[in-house]
Amino acid sequence: MSSQTKFKKDKEIIAEYEAQIKEIRTQLVEQFKCLEQQSESRLQLLQDLQEFFRRKAEIELEYSRSLEKLAERFSSKIRSSREHQFKKDQYLLSPVNCWYLVLHQTRRESRDHATLNDIFMNNVIVRLSQISEDVIRLFKKSKEIGLQMHEELLKVTNELYTVMKTYHMYHAESISAESKLKEAEKQEEKQFNKSGDLSMNLLRHEDRPQRRSSVKKIEKMKEKRQAKYSENKLKCTKARNDYLLNLAATNAAISKYYIHDVSDLIDCCDLGFHASLARTFRTYLSAEYNLETSRHEGLDVIENAVGNLDSRSDKHTVMDMCNQVFCPPLKFEFQPHMGDEVCQVSAQQPVQTELLMRYHQLQSRLATLKIENEEVRKTLDATMQTLQDMLTVEDFDVSDAFQHSRSTESVKSAASETYMSKINIAKRRANQQETEMFYFTKFKEYVNGSNLITKLQAKHDLLKQTLGEGERAECGTTRIQDKLYHWSSRAVSDTSIYMDSSSKASSECQDLRLKSMTSKIPLREVKTPLWMTKMNEISIQLLAF
Amino acid sequence: MSSQTKFKKDKEIIAEYEAQIKEIRTQLVEQFKCLEQQSESRLQLLQDLQEFFRRKAEIELEYSRSLEKLAERFSSKIRSSREHQFKKDQYLLSPVNCWYLVLHQTRRESRDHATLNDIFMNNVIVRLSQISEDVIRLFKKSKEIGLQMHEELLKVTNELYTVMKTYHMYHAESISAESKLKEAEKQEEKQFNKSGDLSMNLLRHEDRPQRRSSVKKIEKMKEKRQAKYSENKLKCTKARNDYLLNLAATNAAISKYYIHDVSDLIDCCDLGFHASLARTFRTYLSAEYNLETSRHEGLDVIENAVGNLDSRSDKHTVMDMCNQVFCPPLKFEFQPHMGDEVCQVSAQQPVQTELLMRYHQLQSRLATLKIENEEVRKTLDATMQTLQDMLTVEDFDVSDAFQHSRSTESVKSAASETYMSKINIAKRRANQQETEMFYFTKFKEYVNGSNLITKLQAKHDLLKQTLGEGERAECGTTRIQDKLYHWSSRAVSDTSIYMDSSSKASSECQDLRLKSMTSKIPLREVKTPLWMTKMNEISIQLLAF
Repeated sequence: MSSQTKFKKDKEIIAEYEAQIKEIRTQLVEQFKCLEQQSESRLQLLQDLQEFFRRKAEIELEYSRSLEKLAERFSSKIRSSREHQFKKDQYLLSPVNCWYLVLHQTRRESRDHATLNDIFMNNVIVRLSQISEDVIRLFKKSKEIGLQMHEELLKVTNELYTVMKTYHMYHAESISAESKLKEAEKQEEKQFNKSGDLSMNLLRHEDRPQRRSSVKKIEKMKEKRQAKYSENKLKCTKARNDYLLNLAATNAAISKYYIHDVSDLIDCCDLGFHASLARTFRTYLSAEYNLETSRHEGLDVIENAVGNLDSRSDKHTVMDMCNQVFCPPLKFEFQPHMGDEVCQVSAQQPVQTELLMRYHQLQSRLATLKIENEEVRKTLDATMQTLQDMLTVEDFDVSDAFQHSRSTESVKSAASETYMSKINIAKRRANQQETEMFYFTKFKEYVNGSNLITKLQAKHDLLKQTLGEGERAECGTTRIQDKLYHWSSRAVSDTSIYMDSSSKASSECQDLRLKSMTSKIPLREVKTPLWMTKMNEISIQLLAF
Repeated sequence: MSSQTKFKKDKEIIAEYEAQIKEIRTQLVEQFKCLEQQSESRLQLLQDLQEFFRRKAEIELEYSRSLEKLAERFSSKIRSSREHQFKKDQYLLSPVNCWYLVLHQTRRESRDHATLNDIFMNNVIVRLSQISEDVIRLFKKSKEIGLQMHEELLKVTNELYTVMKTYHMYHAESISAESKLKEAEKQEEKQFNKSGDLSMNLLRHEDRPQRRSSVKKIEKMKEKRQAKYSENKLKCTKARNDYLLNLAATNAAISKYYIHDVSDLIDCCDLGFHASLARTFRTYLSAEYNLETSRHEGLDVIENAVGNLDSRSDKHTVMDMCNQVFCPPLKFEFQPHMGDEVCQVSAQQPVQTELLMRYHQLQSRLATLKIENEEVRKTLDATMQTLQDMLTVEDFDVSDAFQHSRSTESVKSAASETYMSKINIAKRRANQQETEMFYFTKFKEYVNGSNLITKLQAKHDLLKQTLGEGERAECGTTRIQDKLYHWSSRAVSDTSIYMDSSSKASSECQDLRLKSMTSKIPLREVKTPLWMTKMNEISIQLLAF
C-alpha cells in the first residue's frame, strides 16, 4: 500500500473543501461589510452636505439682511431729503444716478442672496435628505437580495459536498467489493491449484465429492462478489458523474456570482444615487449661476450709467435748475439825457480825426493783445491736456487681486505694489495739484486778457461801424440792414470764434459728438439748455431795438 | 416845458441804472450760492458713498469670515478622518470629489469677498476721500477766480456810471450854454428890433454912440456864449461818445461773463470730478466683475465634476479598494477518491443511455427557462428605463426664482408652485418607490432564473462535451485541444452572452462609450478593474490544469 500515501484521505479532502467554503463565506461577509461601509460613507457625505448647505443658507440670509439694511439706510435718507425740491432735481445729475443704481444693485443682491437661502433650505437640503432615505432603503433591499444570493451559493456548495461524500462512499464500497472479489479469485485460484494436485490424488482417495462442493462454493462466492463489485462500480460511476456535473454547476454558479451578481448587487445599492446627487448639485449650481447672471445684469446697468457720467450735461442741468440765476441780464441801454436826440457815436468834425486815431490805436492794440492771449491759451490747452491725461488714467483694473495662485493661495493686498500704493498716490496727487495750480494761474491770465480784448473789441467794432457809417452816410436805407446784419453775424461769430479759440470747449463739443455717434444717442438729444434759449430770446429782443 | 416830462430825469436814470446793477449783483451772489450748494451736494454724495463702501466692506468681510469658518469646519473634519486609509481612498470617488470642490469653491468665495473688502477699504474709499478734497480745493480756487471776474464786472459798470454821469454833466452844461446863447440871441434880436425903430429916431437924436456900445456888448456876449456853447457841445459829444463806447464795452463784458465765463467757472469747479468719480466706480465695478469671473470659474470646475459623477467608475474604484474581497475564489477541483483514476464523466454503457436522456431533458428545460427568463429581463429593462427617466428628470433649473419683476420686486419662494412643491415631491417619491419595488421583485425573479440556467447550462455543457467525446473517442489527440478551445470560448461567450442578455450592463457600456466620445476621454481610460485582472489570471491558471 505504498502508492496509497500519494492519495488524499477522505478527511484531508473534506478539510480542504471546508477551508475553501470558509474562505468563500468570509469573502461574502466582507462584501456585505464593504457595501455597508460604502452606504455609511454616503450617508455621512449626505449629512455633511446637508449641514453645509444649512449653514451656507444661514450665511446667505445674514448677508442678504446686512445688504438690505445698508441699502435701506441710504434709501430712507434719500426719501426724506427728496422732499426738498432741490434734492429732487439732483436726481437728474449723472453721479447721483450712479449712486442710486449702486443702491439698487445692493437691494438686488440682497434679494438674490435671500433666494439662495430659500433654494438651499427648501430645495437642496430636501433633496439631500431624500437621497439619504434612498441610500438606506436601497441598501436594505440590496442586502436582502444579496443574502438570497449567498444562500443560493451555500445551497449549491452543500449539494456539492453531499454528492462528493456519496462518491467517496460508493468508491470506497467499490474498492472494498473489488478487493473481496480479488480475494475470492485468489481462493479460487488456490483451490484450482490444489485441485490440480488433488486430481492426481483423487484417484487414490474417495473424498472427491467433498472437494467438488468446496469448488462450487468458491465459484458461487466469486460470482456473488463479482456481481457486488459490478453493482458498486456502477454506483460509483454514477456518483462520480454526479459529483463532476455538480462540480461544473457549482463552479459556474460561483463564477456567475463573482463576475456578475456582486456587480449587480452594487448597482442595486447605487440605484439613482449618482443621478439624484447630480440633480442636487445642479440645483445648487443653477442657483449660483442665476445669482451671478442677475448680479452681472445689475453691474452692467451701473457700468452704463458710469459711462454716461457727463460733466457738460450736468452743468446744463444745474444751470437749468437755477435758470433765473444764470440768465443774462438785460443789456444796458443808452439813456439820452434830457431829450438828447443824438443817440449814436458822433463822428463829425472835430472829433472825427480823434476817433479815427483812436480806432487805429485800438486796432493795433487788439492785434498785439490777441497774439499774446493766444499764446496763453496754447499753454492753457496743453496744461489741460496734461490734467486730462492724469484724470482719465486707467488705474481701476483690480483683476490682479483676484488671481488664485494654486501654490500659495494667499490673498494679495489690493493696495500693495499697485497703482494704489501710498507712495504712488502721494506722488500722483502732488503732481496733479501742481499742474492744477499752474492751470489756474494761466486761466486767470487768460480770463484777464480776454476780458480786456472783449472790451476793446466792442469799442473797436462800434468805432468801425460809426466811421464806416460816416463814410457812406449817403446810403441811409442800407444803414439799418447793415446794422442788423452786423449784430446777427456778431452773435454767431462771437460764439463760434470763442468755440474755436477755446479748444477745451471745442473738444468738449467733439466729445459729445463722438459720444453721440458711438452710443447711438441722436444728436438732437443734446438739447439747447434753458438758460441759453432765454438768452437767445433776449438777443432777439435786443436786435429789435 | 411840456415835452420835458417825456425825458427821464437824472435821478430816474441813476435809479434805473442802480436797480439794474443791484440785480446783477444779486445774480452774482446767487451764482456763488448755487456753485456752493452744488459742491456741498457733491461732498454729501461722496460722504454717503464712503459710508456706504465702508459698511459694504464690513459686510463683505463678515461674509468672507463666515464662509471661511464654514469651509474650515468641514475641511478639518476631512483632514482628521483622512488619517484612516479607507477615507483616503474615498477621495477618489466622484461624489466625494464634488463635495471637496464645493468646499474649495467656498474657500475661494471667502477669499474673493475678503479681497472685495480690501479693495473697498484701501482703494475705493481712498479715492472718494481724495475726490472730496479735490471738490473743496477746486471750489475755493474757482470762487477766487469768480470773485475776480465779479470785480472786473463791477469795475466796468462803475466806469459806465462815471462816463454816464460825465455825459449828463456835459449835456446839462451844453443845454445851459445853449439856453444862455439863445437868451443872448434873443437880447440881440430885441436890440436889433429896437435899433430898427431907433434908426429912424437916430436921425433925430444924438445918443447913437451910446446905443452902438450896447449892441457891441450884446454881440460880444453872444459870441462868448456861442463859444461856450460850442465848447460844451463838443465836450458833451465826446462824453456821449465815451458813454456809448463804454456802454458797448460793458455790455460785451457782461455778455461774455454770462455766456462763457460762468460756464468756465463751473468747469473749473467740475475739473476732474466726473473723471475721478468714474474711475472710482470703475474700480468698484472691476472688483465686482472679477469676483464674478472667479466665482464663475469655480462653479465651472464643480459643474465639470458633477458631469463626471459616474457610478460605474466608482463601483470599480470600490472593488479595487477591496480587491481581495471581490476577487473570485479558486474553482472547486475534482478530488479523485483513493487513487480513483477516472476523473471525467464516464459515458460508457450502462450509463450512456441515461446520460443521453438526461442531456436531452436538460436541453429542453434550458430552452424553456431561457425563454421565460428573457421575458422577465424585458420587463426588468422597461422598469429600469422608467426608473432612469424618473431619476434623471431635469428639475434643477431655478432661474424663475431670480426673475426681478420690476413691478412687484417680490421674492418668489423657490419651493412654491414649482417642481419642488410638497405635493409634487410626495407624488413623485411614491411613484418612484413603487417602481423601485417592482424592479426589485423582478430582479429577484431574474436572478433566480439565471442562477438555475447557469447551473443547468454548466451540466448541459459538460454532458455535451462528454457525449461528444464518446462519439469520437478514437481521435484522442484532438480531444485536449478541443477541451481547451471549449474552455476559452466559454470564458468569452459566458461574458459576452451575459452582456447581451443584460441590456442594463450593455447600455452601461454604451453610456461609457458615448461619454468617452463626447467628453473626449480615450476609451482605453476605461481600464480593466483590478479584481477582474486577478480573475483572468486565475482563469488562465485553470486553463492550465
